[in-house]
Amino acid sequence: MSAASPGHVIDCLQYCNVSETILRELRAGGVDAIHTTISYHEDFRETVENIVGWNTLFAEHPDLIFHGKVGGDVRRARTEGRTAVFFGLQNCSPIEDDIGLVEVCHTLGVRFMQLSYNNQSLLASGCYEREDTGITRMGREVIVEMNRLGMVIDMSHSGTRSTLEAIELSQRPIAVTHANPHRWHPVVRNKPDEVLKALAQGGGLLGFSIYPHHLKNGGACTLREFCEMVARTADLIGVAHLGIGSDLCQDQPDEVVQWMRRGRWTKEPVDAINPVVFPKQPSWFRGNVDFPGIAEGLAAVGFSPSDVAGIMGENWLRFFEQSFAPAAATSGGARQTP
Amino acid sequence: MSAASPGHVIDCLQYCNVSETILRELRAGGVDAIHTTISYHEDFRETVENIVGWNTLFAEHPDLIFHGKVGGDVRRARTEGRTAVFFGLQNCSPIEDDIGLVEVCHTLGVRFMQLSYNNQSLLASGCYEREDTGITRMGREVIVEMNRLGMVIDMSHSGTRSTLEAIELSQRPIAVTHANPHRWHPVVRNKPDEVLKALAQGGGLLGFSIYPHHLKNGGACTLREFCEMVARTADLIGVAHLGIGSDLCQDQPDEVVQWMRRGRWTKEPVDAINPVVFPKQPSWFRGNVDFPGIAEGLAAVGFSPSDVAGIMGENWLRFFEQSFAPAAATSGGARQTP
Repeated sequence: MSAASPGHVIDCLQYCNVSETILRELRAGGVDAIHTTISYHEDFRETVENIVGWNTLFAEHPDLIFHGKVGGDVRRARTEGRTAVFFGLQNCSPIEDDIGLVEVCHTLGVRFMQLSYNNQSLLASGCYEREDTGITRMGREVIVEMNRLGMVIDMSHSGTRSTLEAIELSQRPIAVTHANPHRWHPVVRNKPDEVLKALAQGGGLLGFSIYPHHLKNGGACTLREFCEMVARTADLIGVAHLGIGSDLCQDQPDEVVQWMRRGRWTKEPVDAINPVVFPKQPSWFRGNVDFPGIAEGLAAVGFSPSDVAGIMGENWLRFFEQSFAPAAATSGGARQTP
Repeated sequence: MSAASPGHVIDCLQYCNVSETILRELRAGGVDAIHTTISYHEDFRETVENIVGWNTLFAEHPDLIFHGKVGGDVRRARTEGRTAVFFGLQNCSPIEDDIGLVEVCHTLGVRFMQLSYNNQSLLASGCYEREDTGITRMGREVIVEMNRLGMVIDMSHSGTRSTLEAIELSQRPIAVTHANPHRWHPVVRNKPDEVLKALAQGGGLLGFSIYPHHLKNGGACTLREFCEMVARTADLIGVAHLGIGSDLCQDQPDEVVQWMRRGRWTKEPVDAINPVVFPKQPSWFRGNVDFPGIAEGLAAVGFSPSDVAGIMGENWLRFFEQSFAPAAATSGGARQTP
């Protein structure tokens, strides 16, 4: 793979306040595909409305974006000079208490679903609960259904035990689309080595987050520190299991981060003195135009061109190609290492 | 309290397929109040529709029933020769993921809510989950809100740890509206001594269930065996903490018990050979006309007239009077023993 023909670039988690400016930056940054969040705490009907919003964007900007549904759409995006947008849910709230809605969401183009988001859900525990008893009765059934349909289980905001059990129960590789190693920056959202190893052993992928709260030194984290952390993670679980899931929330108002944190589950008053706000991005990653700089940073810490291409998107591309088809269309839906 | 003027009679859990026949049986049985289930797995909108159904019944049969909202409505029912119908939810599905719906449901007349029904919920674990980590982050907030409003926490279908934590966290007495001692009939829905003792210490009440799966020998359980079990429970936690919550599901089709068990959370096929059906009621409790016989059975095993009156409804009446007013209207919402 020559420098003139780098691999496909995929960002496996964004939640930008999308505008034509941002869509043009996707193209300027050479981003062939993104996984965009459709819902955090929205119920089914609200999720459908958010999909309607994306459908409108697809209709308005057919020269820039289209709705990605299968792995091959990433290749098509590159060929056509557009960006394929894959839908994902950060919580299981969109399926409410109805397992039948998993298939409905898949039909609407959803390709990722987190089994829980910070809190206990009907399916799994979240990383901010005091304890975690793992996958629930309904969760076990939903994993089977997601495996059958080709919807990826994402455990980015779930607890450790729930994540380990999801890896064990799932017949197909799962993802942690946006998190970093807990050992590097020990916050509850980052993942312990035990989880990272099990994830890779199950054929799964980790997307490195560039959200400041997940970075050592927050927004002051340097590109070199970030890339060295990627290298240590490659040593731990193998470079084939690594990608990017930047968690970019460009141009979102602070009300959005309050929705993420609070949903509708708490009556605790918003702190008027110190409200929750979006943290300041690192200088080397303000938006999609900065992706080439990350590739350079990875090369600078010693990754080979093919490893850089893998981390920047080729690993996710392989994962997408494995993961989004119904189980019957793959080798029996059995777990495969890439 | 003379035999000619017994105490008020309250059945603190029914889910009958209500008809004029059943409403007339309530009167024939001298039942002054029932707590009726409005929802098992219904969401908010579906719950509202079920309330509309009851409102229609209230309009059609004002001579027989009315919507009970405060404890005093039980006394009024007796005076007017009618039955007060109190609303309850067997699951937290009606509040979806929105703590604001607790107040809305209270305004609509809901006076009981179970924090979970068999499975893990957003608030607590259910008795059929493998493990139970207790009350969740959202659950802690909802308990405060229920305490504030005057909505009773019911833990009949919850797990042991969740139930113990709910008792501990709630500032007001809670209820187990329909269950029996696990020691007497060891099924997962019945409650261990540890729970019964903590319930009573917190000022709470246990409603004895007459649903055959909760009875020793099922539908073959005799009235005497049932009443002796009540006596042993009085020895354990005190007669003041006891009432009836018959779990009567008169005239319901078997599809209803399948809804209770399965909701929308499983894709496991219904067992066509051995489908889940309602069990056969014991001969001494086929419906509301049989309540006087239970009072006689309790007297026959040695309960005093005032104890019989307490178990048949006076204990629930005191509990209703304590529990359905906003916290500010009571002595600070502090836990009280009756």
